[in-house]
Amino acid sequence: MSAERSAANPLWGGRFATGPAEVMAEINPSIDFDRRLYAEDIAGSKAHCAMLVAQGILDSEDGAAIAAGLDEIAAEITRGDFPFERALEDIHMNVEARLATLIGEAAGRLHTARSRNDQVATDVRLWLRAESERLDGQIEALQAALIDQAERHAATVMPGLTHLQPAQPVTFGHHLMAYVEMFGRDRGRLADARRRANECPLGAAALAGTAFPIDRERTARALGFDRPAANSMDAVSDRDFVIEFLGAASLIAMHLSRLAEELVLWASPGFAFVTLSDAFTTGSSIMPQKRNPDAAELIRGKTGRVYGALIAVLTMMKGLAMTFAKDMQEDKEPLFDAADTVSVGVRAMTGMIADLTVDAEALRAAAEAGYATATDLADWLVQHLGLPFRQAHHVVGRIVRLAEGKGVRLADLSLEAMREIEPRIDDGVYEVLAVERAVARRTSFGGTAPANVRAAVARARERFLR
Amino acid sequence: MSAERSAANPLWGGRFATGPAEVMAEINPSIDFDRRLYAEDIAGSKAHCAMLVAQGILDSEDGAAIAAGLDEIAAEITRGDFPFERALEDIHMNVEARLATLIGEAAGRLHTARSRNDQVATDVRLWLRAESERLDGQIEALQAALIDQAERHAATVMPGLTHLQPAQPVTFGHHLMAYVEMFGRDRGRLADARRRANECPLGAAALAGTAFPIDRERTARALGFDRPAANSMDAVSDRDFVIEFLGAASLIAMHLSRLAEELVLWASPGFAFVTLSDAFTTGSSIMPQKRNPDAAELIRGKTGRVYGALIAVLTMMKGLAMTFAKDMQEDKEPLFDAADTVSVGVRAMTGMIADLTVDAEALRAAAEAGYATATDLADWLVQHLGLPFRQAHHVVGRIVRLAEGKGVRLADLSLEAMREIEPRIDDGVYEVLAVERAVARRTSFGGTAPANVRAAVARARERFLR
Amino acid sequence: MSAERSAANPLWGGRFATGPAEVMAEINPSIDFDRRLYAEDIAGSKAHCAMLVAQGILDSEDGAAIAAGLDEIAAEITRGDFPFERALEDIHMNVEARLATLIGEAAGRLHTARSRNDQVATDVRLWLRAESERLDGQIEALQAALIDQAERHAATVMPGLTHLQPAQPVTFGHHLMAYVEMFGRDRGRLADARRRANECPLGAAALAGTAFPIDRERTARALGFDRPAANSMDAVSDRDFVIEFLGAASLIAMHLSRLAEELVLWASPGFAFVTLSDAFTTGSSIMPQKRNPDAAELIRGKTGRVYGALIAVLTMMKGLAMTFAKDMQEDKEPLFDAADTVSVGVRAMTGMIADLTVDAEALRAAAEAGYATATDLADWLVQHLGLPFRQAHHVVGRIVRLAEGKGVRLADLSLEAMREIEPRIDDGVYEVLAVERAVARRTSFGGTAPANVRAAVARARERFLR
Amino acid sequence: MSAERSAANPLWGGRFATGPAEVMAEINPSIDFDRRLYAEDIAGSKAHCAMLVAQGILDSEDGAAIAAGLDEIAAEITRGDFPFERALEDIHMNVEARLATLIGEAAGRLHTARSRNDQVATDVRLWLRAESERLDGQIEALQAALIDQAERHAATVMPGLTHLQPAQPVTFGHHLMAYVEMFGRDRGRLADARRRANECPLGAAALAGTAFPIDRERTARALGFDRPAANSMDAVSDRDFVIEFLGAASLIAMHLSRLAEELVLWASPGFAFVTLSDAFTTGSSIMPQKRNPDAAELIRGKTGRVYGALIAVLTMMKGLAMTFAKDMQEDKEPLFDAADTVSVGVRAMTGMIADLTVDAEALRAAAEAGYATATDLADWLVQHLGLPFRQAHHVVGRIVRLAEGKGVRLADLSLEAMREIEPRIDDGVYEVLAVERAVARRTSFGGTAPANVRAAVARARERFLR
Repeated sequence: MSAERSAANPLWGGRFATGPAEVMAEINPSIDFDRRLYAEDIAGSKAHCAMLVAQGILDSEDGAAIAAGLDEIAAEITRGDFPFERALEDIHMNVEARLATLIGEAAGRLHTARSRNDQVATDVRLWLRAESERLDGQIEALQAALIDQAERHAATVMPGLTHLQPAQPVTFGHHLMAYVEMFGRDRGRLADARRRANECPLGAAALAGTAFPIDRERTARALGFDRPAANSMDAVSDRDFVIEFLGAASLIAMHLSRLAEELVLWASPGFAFVTLSDAFTTGSSIMPQKRNPDAAELIRGKTGRVYGALIAVLTMMKGLAMTFAKDMQEDKEPLFDAADTVSVGVRAMTGMIADLTVDAEALRAAAEAGYATATDLADWLVQHLGLPFRQAHHVVGRIVRLAEGKGVRLADLSLEAMREIEPRIDDGVYEVLAVERAVARRTSFGGTAPANVRAAVARARERFLR
Repeated sequence: MSAERSAANPLWGGRFATGPAEVMAEINPSIDFDRRLYAEDIAGSKAHCAMLVAQGILDSEDGAAIAAGLDEIAAEITRGDFPFERALEDIHMNVEARLATLIGEAAGRLHTARSRNDQVATDVRLWLRAESERLDGQIEALQAALIDQAERHAATVMPGLTHLQPAQPVTFGHHLMAYVEMFGRDRGRLADARRRANECPLGAAALAGTAFPIDRERTARALGFDRPAANSMDAVSDRDFVIEFLGAASLIAMHLSRLAEELVLWASPGFAFVTLSDAFTTGSSIMPQKRNPDAAELIRGKTGRVYGALIAVLTMMKGLAMTFAKDMQEDKEPLFDAADTVSVGVRAMTGMIADLTVDAEALRAAAEAGYATATDLADWLVQHLGLPFRQAHHVVGRIVRLAEGKGVRLADLSLEAMREIEPRIDDGVYEVLAVERAVARRTSFGGTAPANVRAAVARARERFLR
Repeated sequence: MSAERSAANPLWGGRFATGPAEVMAEINPSIDFDRRLYAEDIAGSKAHCAMLVAQGILDSEDGAAIAAGLDEIAAEITRGDFPFERALEDIHMNVEARLATLIGEAAGRLHTARSRNDQVATDVRLWLRAESERLDGQIEALQAALIDQAERHAATVMPGLTHLQPAQPVTFGHHLMAYVEMFGRDRGRLADARRRANECPLGAAALAGTAFPIDRERTARALGFDRPAANSMDAVSDRDFVIEFLGAASLIAMHLSRLAEELVLWASPGFAFVTLSDAFTTGSSIMPQKRNPDAAELIRGKTGRVYGALIAVLTMMKGLAMTFAKDMQEDKEPLFDAADTVSVGVRAMTGMIADLTVDAEALRAAAEAGYATATDLADWLVQHLGLPFRQAHHVVGRIVRLAEGKGVRLADLSLEAMREIEPRIDDGVYEVLAVERAVARRTSFGGTAPANVRAAVARARERFLR
Repeated sequence: MSAERSAANPLWGGRFATGPAEVMAEINPSIDFDRRLYAEDIAGSKAHCAMLVAQGILDSEDGAAIAAGLDEIAAEITRGDFPFERALEDIHMNVEARLATLIGEAAGRLHTARSRNDQVATDVRLWLRAESERLDGQIEALQAALIDQAERHAATVMPGLTHLQPAQPVTFGHHLMAYVEMFGRDRGRLADARRRANECPLGAAALAGTAFPIDRERTARALGFDRPAANSMDAVSDRDFVIEFLGAASLIAMHLSRLAEELVLWASPGFAFVTLSDAFTTGSSIMPQKRNPDAAELIRGKTGRVYGALIAVLTMMKGLAMTFAKDMQEDKEPLFDAADTVSVGVRAMTGMIADLTVDAEALRAAAEAGYATATDLADWLVQHLGLPFRQAHHVVGRIVRLAEGKGVRLADLSLEAMREIEPRIDDGVYEVLAVERAVARRTSFGGTAPANVRAAVARARERFLR
């Protein structure tokens, strides 16, 4: 197959009257970032080579020489003494040129029935598959940290907020379990993306397939793909798998940003609900009380670069005529950057959650301030006195105003005082006015009752942890 | 459950000294766009009501009155004579207020054990599920149109381009089948998103669940959900399903933009490969030869608004503390707009593809210009003379320069001329120099050979069409 | 000039075998949104007509008939009884068709030496210019509200936060004046964008200019433009002015989102620094203490749709070959939406700021908690004892730990206690430990001292308010 | 001033029980990218130091030692033997720690009356100012290349396209001059952004200003700023200048993407209007006729990363409470990347344009195909026969159909043939039917007539080139 994409000077430069402009050497090569794909590139070449031998397209001697040469190259790169050259543009040409140096003419037979177009698509898919799996494991560890804290605080009462205003009491464990759900969906998206991406482009060649009697099933299988890609033109011009991953990564970043925002809030003196560990905060030499939540802020701020990476690749692909165009070289840096960003964000968050110290007293006090059990009072009026909910609301409004006027909590109001507003109230009402009771009564599936939270913890361990 | 989100003036305004500012009436209500959810809102209320009756929380008389009232409201809205009021802010309050007018006090019992927070989340999920299914069917129709054209043109040779330069001959059918793969992945993403979104928030109430003995499984089942959402706080503060859909929609828009770009190119005199039908072009009263590809251009241009909708909701959710915040009201307009945009784009594209007239002669002529079978010549040298591929490339380069110098096609070179460059060439070489032969020989799986394309068409019908 | 863009069926449809597809009627017309440009369209036509008469291209009788007809149309639209037709696609064709009905054949002479391409570019520039000026006035009103509150609270001490942690005391007035600067820059960007956009495309015609002896200077002047656009192809294919406005709008939205976030925080019980007025909050019928900061949340959430609009138009223009393409029709909806969004956001914010009640006691108490004057102590050590700053930091760190251990504020430590750490400290140190003094001493230009804030208020009134 | 932002372990770590987590060392330091600001950081420190001496805050001996030490550090970094340490987090701490090593205790006095918050804001503004100026010069060079080509091709006729369909003939020079306008606006935006950003944050200190008697005017002047920033809190929490630059860069990238798209089209065999030079294309060893327009494609594709950078910083700043937050550290990488990207894009484009070979024959032939002078015929009917424009359109439509039917150009129709449609036509009409004449007649200001283009070239040299 031809080098459909730009080939390095040594290979195609002969008839060009002048060499590339200086600025071309600045804009064109990808070796500075695609060297990261070296292991995948070599694995792909070895699988391709083995298939060529099996199909009789390459003799086994050449095949053995190539495989050995590739192994040596992998070792060189791992050892850090591989002579990368920008003039050779990309990882594929660097490896192939080195192979020629190491084993001579046989190296030239490796590129039979393939091109750099299918080769790079294969490399990125292999890399992304491994990266997705690593990331999945890292998110699982984050879920584990959240679940452990949730179990510890299954009954720790805190104010449940809507509009950042206290609404109803919940438990800290219940709050954290909401994030376990979010990150569970993130893992589902990664798995779906991985499954959809797990098709092998190798053998699509430049764009049209090949006349060599290759066995694409074999190559696909050897590399752990589920199947070969069904259309050769699609195979070399598709970057959906990059974008779908970046979409999933954007949601991970968004979820992290919400939790990070909450940590910043909870750690501020306005809330003072938690203390972040030394390991994830920075201090000031002059204000020793200060623990700046740097890690949480960085995680929150890095959301932007993940969204940016998504937009970068979506923009790049917009309106691009088939098949391969050099524009597509711009897929890798945003992909690598976003993958690194969500990975470090997930791992830093895992550490912060695991190390978190919760001030249960402060949480409880905040839950009792406000009139967070007002809804419970209304529900009681509905259930015990048969009031329509809207009317119960009205009664509760008057009672809360009464308490507010007296400067007391609802639980501190006398029965007489409440009866002036609704004479049928009896002392059963006190059952629902304390925050612990309010929490304990919310036993509907998915509700915040400590027993529910413990059950949710158990189920989550089964659903999410290996 | 309380109206955790802003409730309309009549309900909560009593103690507010002044009414809302004039600008508040401009920024706050959502009824102008969320009325689109009326059918889902009513379906959700009916399922909730039936569950309350089944659980003994509501007596069956009230339940029947509520159900009948809701049916009447649905009929009113369908007929267009429902009295929407902006003062009632949203679809939920509009329906509930009307229900009170229609059936009196019993209406107040419907809002037991729920809030607008879980209600709106349920409505949007129901709407999105139906919309996804509609869209899936529309994309299927587009695939059908592509497959039909692909079958028709399984052997129509055209230049396969990389870098918008001719690389190797392919067939028009093969080209179109690449898009069938793209849209197939899009449908996969919609299906995955739909599955992940198909959990029922109802019963999460304001954020904490409820003390009423509700049966969330029953409500979920009644509304066609796979299960109730597992965590009440997540249930009311999650908008992943909106973003995941917008991500899938962005990829659909991107794929459409590529095909639209190709149609614009192919219809331009520079290429003149296809004629778009009257139905999808516009003319000029003065230049009757002109067929402006307006529909294709609009589809391409609308990519921006879908990407924009994705960024809108990702930005909105960034760094948002739990649980519900009014910011989330901003999810619906981008969702509706993006759904409408990809739907109209898919349907317009289906029509354009179905109506497309292909100029097979022009395609063939373009395929023969250039030296698109040079790769085939190189492959022949490898296969028949045993040259390493890189060396074969070199030989072919010289032969192409020779043809270029003489101003002829490769197939027009004499054997003698070629033998001056590589003496072992025999007349078997002409087998591979004609574009039809080049195409026919690419029989590797996924390759462009007409037989392959026909097989791909058959498989695609099975994989994608119902 | 020709109708380079798609013309309506009646005008170009004759030779088209079939009418537009049904979906085409859905995707193609712009009249639903571009009718908003009617006043600009008519003003542009009147100026064009007057120029044609002045240049002798049109006789004055026809000119008078056209002008009268256009006035009548403007009146009809204003009255709401103009018969808009979707079949006529856009505002230009609707007006022109109606003109023909009203005045007959002469209507056909108006379109001499212009096309819809330069016409729509002119309309949007006129609209945007007026909108920018309106918005500038609205932001000025917001600045006025901020400045008034800043003056009122020039000396109201509050904690100055970095990382959402108390760092040094500042004043509430100083904090608000930071936003006055931000919005001042926003106005500067709007003014620059307006100036750059204020060139007249009229007379560029379809794309190439015209052979009619038109006077573009005259038309430009009549419409208040600074000059005619210098290149006819640029004039019809440029949408920079839309994007530059959307960029400026994105920064406005970002600034609003920061202030909105602070209002949400300050209004939450965790901070309780301010009370938002009834006019901009919503309540709950059951929790009368609740004032949900809906307006602030909506402003914050709407940031997304402004960023989305920016991305929409940037994406649409990416890689678009010259000159006009139908894609560009997609510029108007994002523009209108973003303009409306920042306008309502600015106005709602103005109301919220004007109505804001500040709890000075709560602010002061928060400023005294923490050890916000620790930096002042370090500065004192540098200034009075000559310690290098880094060493002073070290000493202060030990003193703060001492106070922390005793559970007192720095100002409550005895001189003896401090001298155990640094013997040279004298009682002059107390001058700097109280928050009022710390604030008052920061008199460097731009610093937080109340006198500075008052001076900044005076300067800001001169710089920003008319 | 205190190290309000996270300070390195050695400085604030004393009371932290445990060191930073391993992942913290991965997420927190910025030295890997902010070392790029070293020259600006040192220049800022020297100006600050000189001001402290002038104000008597620092004695002149210490001042001299600090200045000498900073010079030595600058030299070390330039030579490449500065010992950067990630443990010291950022460029500021690296420089300061090294200064302490070089000159001892006096180093500790440099940080008087400033903090890293105002320091980093100053550094970035200085860097961006210089970068903007470099970029302005690079865009000027691109304009010069375009103007030179435009002059050369002021009369080279080509098809003027709308909807990628031929509309009216224009000249290649006129087409290129449209881009000169676009890039002229880009330079205007850079200049406006530079002017607005040119305020000095130094002396804002951590956030509140300082009690030291500093002279901010002096520091500002010494660093070439127009004035000190007016509000200390705004000074440390403002990143508008980054975003405004990224907005301007996005428009530059968009303009480049349009020109790049056109080059890709023009270089494709479908158009074959231009030949790109060897210096900016890549070849294929096997298809020597192939000149892949890699540089143009990369420029087009890189648009995405510039848009992505804009979204990254907009997202990062959304909803951020004042003042400094660690999130803001995320401003630098997108800024650097976007600046580098547009710079390399502008320079590569300059080379491509300068080297461009235009096939004037191919352009002329394409202009004559189609009926691009149909509009001229209509204008002639209006001007010479007094037909209303809409009626003239109708007549021309019939004439074009006639020519189409005969398969000839308009200029080839006999007078008799035309008179059958409109009897008053005389042979003056042929004046307007040839493409050169059509072009030459469009002499309205900004029109495509060669004389106009030459005048526009002369004006552009005066307006844009130094």
